[in-house]
Amino acid sequence: MDTVKYLLNEEQMPTTWYNIAADLPAPPPPVLHPGTGQPIGPADLAPLFPMALIMQEVSTERAIAIPEEVQAIYRQWRPTPLFRARRLERLLDTPAKIYYKYEGVSPAGSHKPNTAVAQAYYNKQEGVRRIVTETGAGQWGSSLAFAGALFGLEIKVYMVRVSYDQKPYRRALMEAYGASVVASPSEETAAGRAILAEHPDSTGSLGIAISEAVEVAAQSEDTKYALGSVLNHVLLHQTVIGQEALAQLEMAGDYPDVVVGCTGGGSNFAGIAFPFIGAALRGERAVRAVAVEPAACPSLTRGKYAYDFGDTAHLTPLVKMHTLGSTFVPPAIHAGGLRYHGMAPLVSHLVQLGQIEPIAVQQLETFAAGIQFARTEGILPAPEANHAIAGVIREALRCKEEGVSRTILFNLCGYGHFDMQAYMDYQAGKLRDFEYSDAEVAMALAGLPSVG
Amino acid sequence: MDTVKYLLNEEQMPTTWYNIAADLPAPPPPVLHPGTGQPIGPADLAPLFPMALIMQEVSTERAIAIPEEVQAIYRQWRPTPLFRARRLERLLDTPAKIYYKYEGVSPAGSHKPNTAVAQAYYNKQEGVRRIVTETGAGQWGSSLAFAGALFGLEIKVYMVRVSYDQKPYRRALMEAYGASVVASPSEETAAGRAILAEHPDSTGSLGIAISEAVEVAAQSEDTKYALGSVLNHVLLHQTVIGQEALAQLEMAGDYPDVVVGCTGGGSNFAGIAFPFIGAALRGERAVRAVAVEPAACPSLTRGKYAYDFGDTAHLTPLVKMHTLGSTFVPPAIHAGGLRYHGMAPLVSHLVQLGQIEPIAVQQLETFAAGIQFARTEGILPAPEANHAIAGVIREALRCKEEGVSRTILFNLCGYGHFDMQAYMDYQAGKLRDFEYSDAEVAMALAGLPSVG
Repeated sequence: MDTVKYLLNEEQMPTTWYNIAADLPAPPPPVLHPGTGQPIGPADLAPLFPMALIMQEVSTERAIAIPEEVQAIYRQWRPTPLFRARRLERLLDTPAKIYYKYEGVSPAGSHKPNTAVAQAYYNKQEGVRRIVTETGAGQWGSSLAFAGALFGLEIKVYMVRVSYDQKPYRRALMEAYGASVVASPSEETAAGRAILAEHPDSTGSLGIAISEAVEVAAQSEDTKYALGSVLNHVLLHQTVIGQEALAQLEMAGDYPDVVVGCTGGGSNFAGIAFPFIGAALRGERAVRAVAVEPAACPSLTRGKYAYDFGDTAHLTPLVKMHTLGSTFVPPAIHAGGLRYHGMAPLVSHLVQLGQIEPIAVQQLETFAAGIQFARTEGILPAPEANHAIAGVIREALRCKEEGVSRTILFNLCGYGHFDMQAYMDYQAGKLRDFEYSDAEVAMALAGLPSVG
Repeated sequence: MDTVKYLLNEEQMPTTWYNIAADLPAPPPPVLHPGTGQPIGPADLAPLFPMALIMQEVSTERAIAIPEEVQAIYRQWRPTPLFRARRLERLLDTPAKIYYKYEGVSPAGSHKPNTAVAQAYYNKQEGVRRIVTETGAGQWGSSLAFAGALFGLEIKVYMVRVSYDQKPYRRALMEAYGASVVASPSEETAAGRAILAEHPDSTGSLGIAISEAVEVAAQSEDTKYALGSVLNHVLLHQTVIGQEALAQLEMAGDYPDVVVGCTGGGSNFAGIAFPFIGAALRGERAVRAVAVEPAACPSLTRGKYAYDFGDTAHLTPLVKMHTLGSTFVPPAIHAGGLRYHGMAPLVSHLVQLGQIEPIAVQQLETFAAGIQFARTEGILPAPEANHAIAGVIREALRCKEEGVSRTILFNLCGYGHFDMQAYMDYQAGKLRDFEYSDAEVAMALAGLPSVG
């Protein structure tokens, strides 16, 4: 009946973040200024981010020190446990060994505080009074609200309208932490007003909400912007997950053949996988890294690797990434954290280098996987995490077919207690799968900027 | 910025439950058969519970071994962390030291799995196929559903109608674990039908739901009943909390002057407090134990210490406890786990012995306390836990007034992610306090049975 747990002492918590830029055989393509088409420099980003984060964004140092004050907060819930999912293994009757890192023990219930706390810290250090951000399902917004409360920062969240309406409880959590939350598109910004003028009933998207938050941050002296995924420094902060997992698997006398994570913006996947991919890049130990994305938002498997904007109103710089086009609005699948048109440039770059295998899974398969997981391991996963579990189950069943034991590691990035409507809809047979035709994908990609 | 955490190794997890019956100066009054008025024996309870639990109910052994299989499941989330709430201390500007034990790290998000897993184990051992239970807010029902999934037991939950309607997400969690959930009062039982005949719009109560579950269990050979609080064996299972806290405070070089817990049925309070009260009863070390109940359901502070039924339809034995009368239906406060007309007989007995100080707090004070806690310690507490926090804040502010430092320990029994509607209502100013007149209390108590 046992789920085996591997715990680290607080002293074994990583004191540095792992920066995969140090181990890349070739650097990722530069970020471009949308007006000039030329690479941007740190100064161009200064209106949006504190300089410490900009320096992390462009750093090629392998190990970047985690400030003591950030470590002190991490220690409330870190190091997080690593579990061997023996009960799930038994249910699947697989020779595979399945391990999962569990990030749901954080106060916000997901991995997002790993970067929210760091971002709040650096903003506070540089005298910022207010941080503006966007959120989809709300995991990121509530994590930043939590971090803002600890550092005495004002937090303003543009929440995608469809989630704002469907997930009032996420909003209530942000407000309980003291943040203010506005439905996006809103009348508060030029970007929001432009969308509403054309689509008064717009249910919003992450791309639109990013436009609003960026616009507000760019216009106020004491206000900066924060992003919960995609950017290099965000992925960097999440590498505490994989570093801890590495040490915990060492305790278990094991090493993963396959590392699996779900991908929306890419930070949760990077957090678990980059330390292992880094070891592979350095020639120390090979690993398969599998990125699982929703078939309803298939940037890695159906999108184009091209320069694109991070937002809908085209206020951000141009980044080279797998994208479905910045005007693509994914259907309202329940894994709200995976509904982004693009992908982290570092993840995209590693896909191009052949270091990451992307796969897309359908919504129904992910919920079936989540229910199997809940009934064996006891934790009801967030819909995003169900994508990773679906990928893991595929790998474990392949081991069974082939009669080989492989070690599979994945990141259980959060629990699903704010996502019960999704489970109700699933159990009631109301959810459906999504499949795009090639023509639909081509149409979404038609508007890509002609840069780079 | 630091919250200090005290962790135990898995090897330091208690291997026995602590039974306070061994240390009582006088045994609690016997449980009586409602027909004969005579003390009941183990055989009388056999239709409802497996014999192992009945033996625990009447045991006077101080240490009762936790079966290895139960320990193996506990280890998924136990030992749970003990935190020093430095950020809350700073906010309150108090010389007090505040420690909290955090039970929200369990898969169900509360302390309830401590007993749910044990009860499921013993039922499985004795060949039971199905367990029937009641639930109010749903913490207990979802914990038993979780435990049932692990042991392959069928779980049926009678959920108080008002919660069934207002908290569909708790219901969805139980169903995700594979349990079946029915609104109580239901048409499925004689007890339910009798209530509906008289009150077709009845919103239910824990007392009614217990009647339904007990009726079903008593009538089927392969079905037993389970209760999430009140009974001796349930309190027993929760003592892992206090035993761990004792060891963790020893690590911190500290010992509580005051232990605080919220009380509904009494098991969460007993879990944290009994090991400390036991030490006091044995003359080892004095402690003040403060039980915090809602003013809207004030069994300890306004109720009568008398023999009463545990349920509304009078199917249970008679137990001596602080009670508001088995027909008392508390108003729909949001701390659903504290809406029970009676109190655990062991807690009541210890109140009579002068070992526990009960206090009642109003709803608005508890939510204000919860928000203060969330913004400093990062965890948004369940409404039940907010009662404990309100009691702690009172104690801490008294320390400030008196200029003395005391060590305060409380149990943060779970997080509030299923209770966001309550927080929304609070923030919108929609919640109110409740105060009973003496006449109202007297009327509720008028129907008490004339036994004992």
